[in-house]
Amino acid sequence: MRIDIITVLPELLKSPFEASILKRAIDANLVEVHFHNLRDYTTDKYKSVDDYQFGGGAGMVMMIEPIDKCISKLQAERHYNDIIYMTPDGERLNQGIANQLSLHQNIIILCGHYKGVDQRVRDQFITKEISIGDYVLSGGELGAAVLCDAIIRLIPGVLGNETSALTDSFQDNLLAPPIYTRPREYKGMKVPEILFSGNFPKIEKWREDQAYKRTEQRRPDLLED
Amino acid sequence: MRIDIITVLPELLKSPFEASILKRAIDANLVEVHFHNLRDYTTDKYKSVDDYQFGGGAGMVMMIEPIDKCISKLQAERHYNDIIYMTPDGERLNQGIANQLSLHQNIIILCGHYKGVDQRVRDQFITKEISIGDYVLSGGELGAAVLCDAIIRLIPGVLGNETSALTDSFQDNLLAPPIYTRPREYKGMKVPEILFSGNFPKIEKWREDQAYKRTEQRRPDLLED
Repeated sequence: MRIDIITVLPELLKSPFEASILKRAIDANLVEVHFHNLRDYTTDKYKSVDDYQFGGGAGMVMMIEPIDKCISKLQAERHYNDIIYMTPDGERLNQGIANQLSLHQNIIILCGHYKGVDQRVRDQFITKEISIGDYVLSGGELGAAVLCDAIIRLIPGVLGNETSALTDSFQDNLLAPPIYTRPREYKGMKVPEILFSGNFPKIEKWREDQAYKRTEQRRPDLLED
Repeated sequence: MRIDIITVLPELLKSPFEASILKRAIDANLVEVHFHNLRDYTTDKYKSVDDYQFGGGAGMVMMIEPIDKCISKLQAERHYNDIIYMTPDGERLNQGIANQLSLHQNIIILCGHYKGVDQRVRDQFITKEISIGDYVLSGGELGAAVLCDAIIRLIPGVLGNETSALTDSFQDNLLAPPIYTRPREYKGMKVPEILFSGNFPKIEKWREDQAYKRTEQRRPDLLED
């Protein structure tokens, strides 16, 4: 899989891709991630990527021309399955969307910044608008990092043990059950006895019950789907 | 405001805090962000922070002891308004929660990693569990960065123009209207004429209508609240 990220702040995105699972996936050639600095596609000497809003109002707007140049260059080199714009008014990311996107060959992720991009960019180039949640961030960069993490960990071979991703929250519309590790007792707080029973079908049943109970308490909406 | 982030991967978190608005807020002393490497609170020579699950199953669990040590040390130094655990089964972050948290003096954010933390950590120390969305990430670090960004940009003085945050999506339960900047025409694509009318009440009305229409189309659930 190849991911091209278009941004005005490539330096903000650096460290998440240089650590942990994303780094391991890149080092193992399971995914390629390329950053494109939008300022490299400007034509004026100030390397401007944004300008004032037409009609007045606070906040700058990202101009269409550098974005057009960057996307057109990438599209001339290969076919992209999706050109994604990170925006709080996009479709809300969920595990199902992450699963789907993880099957793609090539995607572009455009990070909005300032007040967002000129609407014509969205009308003309974008095939999918994604929001990571109902809150506003300074820019689309963290959203892009979140999206990449959610997708890349699903690519076969990235996680050490494939069953590990399959037992995560949401993969079966249930939250994960409580988990425990050593020590068995810590300052008077004990681990539930059942986990030491050695009776694995019974442990499995307990975990399912706990997962169901937790989902019912915290996220009844997941059970309705 | 002071934010203490407890993590096994402080290096992953670096760049988002060294760029753009978060950096500016830190440089201007509007917020202090401290990273605590959980491995500094371990007692064995391997600096272990995780161990196998009791009862069997894939994935490692973060142990209670180093987390207890780190949180207890911080709590001995000052009072914290909230100790937040980033987890996909927590309360879903939204703009209202971000607004509330931005009024706090001191918070701790604990980043889960691997399969998550020992349940006793959650029972004993955590006052708030937050999820940034219905998807699974490799760890809580990106979630913590997202939470910090959403909060910090709301602290007075952080954004250049305070009205800029107030006109964002969600602050009035409406998505933002389309925005445009120069050029007025680009490869045949034109900016709506109304924005050049100079009639600001009419422009305001058009924007409200557009915001309402977009919300109705994309997120009718926001209008129901």
